[in-house]
Amino acid sequence: MIHPARLAIATVALALAAGLGSATAQTPPTSAAVDPARIEDLVAANRILAEEGVLDAYGHVSIRHPSDPTRYLMSRSLAPILVTASDIMEYDLDSNPIDPQGRRGVIERFIHGEIYMLRPDVNAVIHSHSPAVVPFGITQVPMRPVIHVASFLWVGVPVWDSRDVADPASAAMLVRNAALGRSLALRLSDKPVALMRGHGNVVVGPDVQMAVRYAIYTEVNARLQAAAIAIGGPINYISAEEGAARDKGERDFARAWELWKKKALGK
Amino acid sequence: MIHPARLAIATVALALAAGLGSATAQTPPTSAAVDPARIEDLVAANRILAEEGVLDAYGHVSIRHPSDPTRYLMSRSLAPILVTASDIMEYDLDSNPIDPQGRRGVIERFIHGEIYMLRPDVNAVIHSHSPAVVPFGITQVPMRPVIHVASFLWVGVPVWDSRDVADPASAAMLVRNAALGRSLALRLSDKPVALMRGHGNVVVGPDVQMAVRYAIYTEVNARLQAAAIAIGGPINYISAEEGAARDKGERDFARAWELWKKKALGK
Amino acid sequence: MIHPARLAIATVALALAAGLGSATAQTPPTSAAVDPARIEDLVAANRILAEEGVLDAYGHVSIRHPSDPTRYLMSRSLAPILVTASDIMEYDLDSNPIDPQGRRGVIERFIHGEIYMLRPDVNAVIHSHSPAVVPFGITQVPMRPVIHVASFLWVGVPVWDSRDVADPASAAMLVRNAALGRSLALRLSDKPVALMRGHGNVVVGPDVQMAVRYAIYTEVNARLQAAAIAIGGPINYISAEEGAARDKGERDFARAWELWKKKALGK
Amino acid sequence: MIHPARLAIATVALALAAGLGSATAQTPPTSAAVDPARIEDLVAANRILAEEGVLDAYGHVSIRHPSDPTRYLMSRSLAPILVTASDIMEYDLDSNPIDPQGRRGVIERFIHGEIYMLRPDVNAVIHSHSPAVVPFGITQVPMRPVIHVASFLWVGVPVWDSRDVADPASAAMLVRNAALGRSLALRLSDKPVALMRGHGNVVVGPDVQMAVRYAIYTEVNARLQAAAIAIGGPINYISAEEGAARDKGERDFARAWELWKKKALGK
Repeated sequence: MIHPARLAIATVALALAAGLGSATAQTPPTSAAVDPARIEDLVAANRILAEEGVLDAYGHVSIRHPSDPTRYLMSRSLAPILVTASDIMEYDLDSNPIDPQGRRGVIERFIHGEIYMLRPDVNAVIHSHSPAVVPFGITQVPMRPVIHVASFLWVGVPVWDSRDVADPASAAMLVRNAALGRSLALRLSDKPVALMRGHGNVVVGPDVQMAVRYAIYTEVNARLQAAAIAIGGPINYISAEEGAARDKGERDFARAWELWKKKALGK
Repeated sequence: MIHPARLAIATVALALAAGLGSATAQTPPTSAAVDPARIEDLVAANRILAEEGVLDAYGHVSIRHPSDPTRYLMSRSLAPILVTASDIMEYDLDSNPIDPQGRRGVIERFIHGEIYMLRPDVNAVIHSHSPAVVPFGITQVPMRPVIHVASFLWVGVPVWDSRDVADPASAAMLVRNAALGRSLALRLSDKPVALMRGHGNVVVGPDVQMAVRYAIYTEVNARLQAAAIAIGGPINYISAEEGAARDKGERDFARAWELWKKKALGK
Repeated sequence: MIHPARLAIATVALALAAGLGSATAQTPPTSAAVDPARIEDLVAANRILAEEGVLDAYGHVSIRHPSDPTRYLMSRSLAPILVTASDIMEYDLDSNPIDPQGRRGVIERFIHGEIYMLRPDVNAVIHSHSPAVVPFGITQVPMRPVIHVASFLWVGVPVWDSRDVADPASAAMLVRNAALGRSLALRLSDKPVALMRGHGNVVVGPDVQMAVRYAIYTEVNARLQAAAIAIGGPINYISAEEGAARDKGERDFARAWELWKKKALGK
Repeated sequence: MIHPARLAIATVALALAAGLGSATAQTPPTSAAVDPARIEDLVAANRILAEEGVLDAYGHVSIRHPSDPTRYLMSRSLAPILVTASDIMEYDLDSNPIDPQGRRGVIERFIHGEIYMLRPDVNAVIHSHSPAVVPFGITQVPMRPVIHVASFLWVGVPVWDSRDVADPASAAMLVRNAALGRSLALRLSDKPVALMRGHGNVVVGPDVQMAVRYAIYTEVNARLQAAAIAIGGPINYISAEEGAARDKGERDFARAWELWKKKALGK
């Protein structure tokens, strides 16, 4: 749970930062005021994904800066379940921290910056080692939707392999520079999810709530698809027609977010 | 846990509603008094199914109105683990809410109304995304009972596919109107369980305790059947003779309900 | 946790029952004083097996009466996780309750009585729906030990099928009379574990601590054997020579019991 | 949580033992003072591995004595989740306890002593029944890395079988003497992990934090590799080139340790 007092302090500090336009030791690392509710959602996203088994000690979640599309916000390097509002750092799209205040950013922040650069429609990015998903990145069976709540996968799930990038860092598998991040973003293309071979996945959305939803149901779909394969025989996948119809249909997204946030933040 | 005070208030309100026959802002949405113990069981069913992993953020449970067979009772759209007595709404069998009081009903309520219309023997309906069950709806292996506590599946488990319904809404897969609900109810026929391809299942019973039991042991059976398939070779299923014998035999149902309710409501 | 006060009361009552030789409404149903530590171990066994996922809402554990080998002690019909000392009933070996005091015994108590009759070496009996074990009772692959802690399975794990008993009750699958219990006990023969097809298993031991150990590691072994089968190829099972050597070797059983009891009773 | 008071007392006792060079009843069994932070990490390692499902009631963790490479430190025989600083015993490399004070050491301590003798680079040893790993010790598929965090497995994972040792104790499968321990250490060779057929594994590292990391991600890798095998077809393993590159690359190890320790010790 985020202590209300802590949030209140953050709010004041953010307001000061915006109003005074100056950076001090007490100033949170942001170029413009961010609505604390957006920060709270980002903190919630970290914890929700840990609670739901998508993130473990690693992985990270970012949002595009609400009022500055050339910036993004993401926790310092910290296990997601431990993230609080004061851990959120700000980056430009080259993934340089704006005001690190001694905090250490995540090595693979370039995943985020490069995707925000190529995908103006994306306002939230998640990188995870989603356990049921990893096997689909190293086998020959493509991930395809098997349950309606994961119908967004109907557009296809590309697999990215760091070895395909001619970069000295590619053998170590981490997305530790812009070239690797750019390659991954290109492989993701206009899709919501791409697998990273032998590593995990990247999930994007128009907002953090939808990205969290996509990440959770990608993991659920992987479990169900693997179980269906083990039962054997041809699988009756969600069709392209169904996927497209569902992309447009009325759905009840708030219901799941309300539950997840309550479980993760205790409120 | 339902706070006793909250239940007491509900009881009074229900009594008033019944006695005065008038709807006010404080009046629960019910045409006739409902014994609070029945509401408590419905609330418990929601939480039990969440605790036991049958329901997640979605899915819903309803009971037929105890004193008016042309009505049913079901929570507003809310994650089942969060449901309390004050969330219960009343519907007619066309799935129109009687007195919504601004509360939003679930999109797929037509599952419930159409089944109650066709099945006078049914007094409780559950719709879930029961995770071990979903793979059986998209593969070619029929669900069959492998453990005695799921012997009720011996009558067969039909699979319903929304694409078989000539309705503009069928491609989006949700049972969002009476035509889709009716089709599902017809596919269910006189059985306790039907699978919904790429979606989940529907489970019915003569009362909510039995429906909960059926839903939990359908999930258990799916896990065990999948495990047996993975081991390989022919499976020694529960036979029709055994299923029929068990339908008539003495059993100890109260024992499981007592445990589940205690775990779910903390009392 | 068993409240010390409750145990103290039980002790006094047991002493009275033994000393006065008369049954009153306050007298626990036992013909002779039972050391409360033995009752506590029986209560612990119920809770341990529930905590470890061997027992769910059903299943039961008994011990032979410490001072009267023609009697056994077992909880009334109650989910194992809820069992306390005051729920323990006493039975003769025909599975008649000695002093039920209105408490309802379990339907399948005949499993226990018939095994105690045929196996003088057995002082504890467990019946469970051990989830990983059930698939081995309905497929053609025999359970065999794959990990040293389950080496006791080297003597073989027979499978009993209620349909092999010429009894009107056999189709309903429950061991609801002495004939079915006797048949199961004969199939168990001199082994520690027998599977019950489409139902679960029965596990016996020289004392309740060893029977609990056997039940837990039978479940563990089933999980590991199924996983090994899924990986594929021939399995390097624990050999008969190893099983026999381990039956005689020094081992450190108290360590696991200490942990399990602490987790189950909170002390 | 280790109570600070308890640690403080241990510190004083350790200082006394070092300063006076004499053993008294109050003296912890160590020949030289050990920084309490190192003991705390060893205690944390026990609990972390239990929390993460690598250790159950059995298994053990040791560290080489920080100031005396001919000694090692390990808990008395106790379920790892229960270990506190006062349970830590000291051994020489022949696995003789230095000052047991009536405490019972683990039967298989020879695993530790023999590895420390042969591997001067190793300062921490873990023996576990890591559940997802066991099946790989009894089937024909070698463990190979499938996820970047387990890339350290690229050097190969040998399998040791106690039956290959010509020793009267080998049939009982436990590493209960130096000959068996030596054989296992030789099979491990210069690798970080060796499987013990039908038993578990042994994991070593340059320090206890790295050994814990290796043990946890060996378990994770086994789960993922088994899942990939079940999906079917050729698996795209982490290559030798990638493994070697990652051995040298910058990584963020402290982040996981911080989380694991917080979860295990509550601080």
